[in-house]
Amino acid sequence: MKVTLSALDTSESSFTPLVVIEFAQDVKEETKEWLKNRIIAPKKHGVRRLLTSGIVIQVFPLHDNEALKKLEDTWYTRFALKYQPIDSIRGYFGETIALYFGFLEYFTFALIPMAVIGLPYYLFVWEDYDKYVIFASFNLIWSTVILEVWKRGCANMTYRWGTLLMKRKFEEPRPGFHGVLGINSITGKEEPLYPSYKRQMRIYLVSLPFVCLCLYFSLYVMMIYFDLEVWALGLHENSGSEWTSVLLYVPSIIYAIVIEIMNRLYRYAAEFLTSWENHRLESAYQNHLILKVLVFNFLNCFASLFYIAFVLKDMKLLRQSLATLLITSQILNQIVESLLPYWLQRKHGVRVKRKVQALKVDIDATLYEQVILEKEMGTYLGTFDDYLELFLQFGYVSLFSCVYPLAAAFAVLNNFTEVNSDALKMCRVFKRPFSEPSASIGVWQLAFETMSVISVVTNCALIGMSPQVNAIFPESKADLILIVVVVEHALLALKFILAFAIPDKPRHIQMKLARLEFESLEALKQQQMMLVTENLKEEPKESGKEKAT
Amino acid sequence: MKVTLSALDTSESSFTPLVVIEFAQDVKEETKEWLKNRIIAPKKHGVRRLLTSGIVIQVFPLHDNEALKKLEDTWYTRFALKYQPIDSIRGYFGETIALYFGFLEYFTFALIPMAVIGLPYYLFVWEDYDKYVIFASFNLIWSTVILEVWKRGCANMTYRWGTLLMKRKFEEPRPGFHGVLGINSITGKEEPLYPSYKRQMRIYLVSLPFVCLCLYFSLYVMMIYFDLEVWALGLHENSGSEWTSVLLYVPSIIYAIVIEIMNRLYRYAAEFLTSWENHRLESAYQNHLILKVLVFNFLNCFASLFYIAFVLKDMKLLRQSLATLLITSQILNQIVESLLPYWLQRKHGVRVKRKVQALKVDIDATLYEQVILEKEMGTYLGTFDDYLELFLQFGYVSLFSCVYPLAAAFAVLNNFTEVNSDALKMCRVFKRPFSEPSASIGVWQLAFETMSVISVVTNCALIGMSPQVNAIFPESKADLILIVVVVEHALLALKFILAFAIPDKPRHIQMKLARLEFESLEALKQQQMMLVTENLKEEPKESGKEKAT
Repeated sequence: MKVTLSALDTSESSFTPLVVIEFAQDVKEETKEWLKNRIIAPKKHGVRRLLTSGIVIQVFPLHDNEALKKLEDTWYTRFALKYQPIDSIRGYFGETIALYFGFLEYFTFALIPMAVIGLPYYLFVWEDYDKYVIFASFNLIWSTVILEVWKRGCANMTYRWGTLLMKRKFEEPRPGFHGVLGINSITGKEEPLYPSYKRQMRIYLVSLPFVCLCLYFSLYVMMIYFDLEVWALGLHENSGSEWTSVLLYVPSIIYAIVIEIMNRLYRYAAEFLTSWENHRLESAYQNHLILKVLVFNFLNCFASLFYIAFVLKDMKLLRQSLATLLITSQILNQIVESLLPYWLQRKHGVRVKRKVQALKVDIDATLYEQVILEKEMGTYLGTFDDYLELFLQFGYVSLFSCVYPLAAAFAVLNNFTEVNSDALKMCRVFKRPFSEPSASIGVWQLAFETMSVISVVTNCALIGMSPQVNAIFPESKADLILIVVVVEHALLALKFILAFAIPDKPRHIQMKLARLEFESLEALKQQQMMLVTENLKEEPKESGKEKAT
Repeated sequence: MKVTLSALDTSESSFTPLVVIEFAQDVKEETKEWLKNRIIAPKKHGVRRLLTSGIVIQVFPLHDNEALKKLEDTWYTRFALKYQPIDSIRGYFGETIALYFGFLEYFTFALIPMAVIGLPYYLFVWEDYDKYVIFASFNLIWSTVILEVWKRGCANMTYRWGTLLMKRKFEEPRPGFHGVLGINSITGKEEPLYPSYKRQMRIYLVSLPFVCLCLYFSLYVMMIYFDLEVWALGLHENSGSEWTSVLLYVPSIIYAIVIEIMNRLYRYAAEFLTSWENHRLESAYQNHLILKVLVFNFLNCFASLFYIAFVLKDMKLLRQSLATLLITSQILNQIVESLLPYWLQRKHGVRVKRKVQALKVDIDATLYEQVILEKEMGTYLGTFDDYLELFLQFGYVSLFSCVYPLAAAFAVLNNFTEVNSDALKMCRVFKRPFSEPSASIGVWQLAFETMSVISVVTNCALIGMSPQVNAIFPESKADLILIVVVVEHALLALKFILAFAIPDKPRHIQMKLARLEFESLEALKQQQMMLVTENLKEEPKESGKEKAT
């Protein structure tokens, strides 16, 4: 028999939002009582072990329907071009999620100039390469600037929220961590220990080969896609009819769907493997997971484009393939991430309502109904997938921007709806997540910056390969390549100098932080002075004695 | 009349080492008394303003002859191949200078593998380019590794000294800073204010054009050097005699000397300009000075080599020029920096001794003599010039390593004597400097890393340009360049991955820091607990009242 410790039980505490716990079978009354006390006192702490040991099935805060309604009204239900209520989002969901929405919004606005400049290339069918060169150069500098400026915007927000100078707490072992009980040399407490060499062996002997195998498989699938492409082209040329020209897009669309499926499958495998590597700290676990997923997704999504660009050297196919991949993946993501779960959710909601109405119990029906409803909602697994989506989108936009300037426009279009579908997802599809403080978007800043460095290289290479640029140097291909390489190095140097020259924090924040530091140092000084004077007060007796002697 | 507040006056304080102050004319007795108290209590603090206002001419700690003798014995007087007594150096001169000597020693040992691998190229006259490629590749990876490993060694040292986690103190305005009196918005105290836009104008309208002018002048001198070179070559070819072949080296040697002179002159100009820019903080002043000096010295020293390598494409001349520049600058540095001042010092010392003996005063003659002697000693202006010398040496060794593998051997040879001459300089030529704590070599780490990135580019370019490598691709020069560029990018990527993968602190230091953090957090928790319990103790009365009502 499953027991639900209803929200009512903890509602008397000062701890908002309400938390609901779902127990496994046969849990004693004392355990429940103990647990209730733990939750009321120090929040999640200590409950995590019960979760992994299987006594508790899930713990989650309930949505606050009134506040949620208010948030939704200012956020996405009334469609209008306006900024998101980031502070309200932070109030309801916490800093980590608010930062994601802040980044999504900032990134969308930052892409608009690229989209606007890219549009005429499509409208007026500009095919001159000198124009593409201008676009690509603008793009490269712009992408550096927006990433640096984001750091400042982010510092602005997190300063306002008080998490910019957040002190790192001492990290407890993550819940899934297991090992032989021993003494931790740092804390001196008893806790499971797991030798580092065993973990290294698991990483290098199992995870690494597995990731390589997956990468190989991804390339294999890519080659199948190219076979399909050739087959479709052959069919079209043989028949020459109108409908087979549509067929040309089919392989790309199928490949885009396969890529999405592979990404999702690999994600589960990576999670399983990283968990099996048995990292002690949540942060180490996250870093290994992110590295695994990023490498695979990068190759899986962009390998075919690199192959078309630098091996087949077919710019027309590159443009077509890029467009299909970008648009298909965006549409798929919107459906799979938000709309489908929302629809299922609604269906389930209607069923529950009917059931509850059939019961016709007491006054608490609405709360009971809410608990039953939210219990079945999906759990939001963190901002990882959302950032990953943006990261891949940034790749599509920047890596081959000089071939397909329209990509930015599609990205902007997608992100305007993405804001709404992500908001819907957070508010209506998932359980309310525990709020987590954070000072920045962390490792994703590095990931986006790396992508923008890679895009300098690819764009320069693409421009150097174009027949129009080649026509300028008809005699010596070597001179052309040298010039391209020099320009590329200059651009890279400019990027690094820009990144170095733009301060990470706006001036007024720097001033405020300096003030804060000054005041805390002053306070420390005063505290020490007080201690000294107290010691002096105690001393006079002794010095009096000394004088007497 | 100049008054010297003799060392005796402050010797009764607990403040070692002894400090000597030289006053300007006509300073009142009260001022001296006040000053003496200031020095006894909080060290240098507050004296700096008297220095800039001209009341005090100089303040310096006296050498402790006994400790100095002991230090010298273990350091450099007995010539033997052994590690320096870094901890004793730190004890006598402070962390900043000890770190310099630590870096010098580490860098010398780190260069030995390069020197050893480079030697056979000279001995067996290996001219195969595939061997040079191997040497250059080793060199590039090695230079990355040694810079990363240094960070770990540095962390090791500074952890032992307790400066690794040094808390930044609140920075006071630097002594030379002037402006209109106003309220500092950070501290709320009255202090001189200088508007930022005025400083920016001085930087961009005066300093920047001046630096550009100097760079232009440096390039102009370089062109004169090339004219000289051509003239010498012509003379040699016309006469064909033995002695004119020696003449071939003369232009390089003259140019090397001119470079040294220009570097030193520019150094004064840069100091004057940066001081005139009126930076509020010492750190900002230092950063602007370092940037100015580094850019000029880099161009001044290496422009001719770049010109020979990539415009003249004369590898023989490059090798000859590189060797002459490197060796001449090293010899010059050793003479100008240490030996010459030491010789002057000795001469002056003999004169003072004679004078003092002629006086035949009281028992304090030795101390009086010491004060008079050290008063005339040069002031050590910080580790800047020493690091700069190493930085330029690193440039000579790494930038064109594939052309002249012997450079590393010369650098090692120089550094073995450099340790001794620098030690002599610190102990016998300069006044004892005030000791300053520091956690790392700071901005120099970045400068060395930048140099090693630039050297990847130059070495790849040199190898790509060599006729031997060109012979492998007789038909298509473009293919060759493409391969070189790909290899270069791979090397750069490898560098960044290496720098990322090697942890900045050794594991045992990480563990200790984690332990420290854990303990301080625990202590904080306990302190808070104590506060809570104290509050609880005070409350019972009230709760008792409540129960009663």
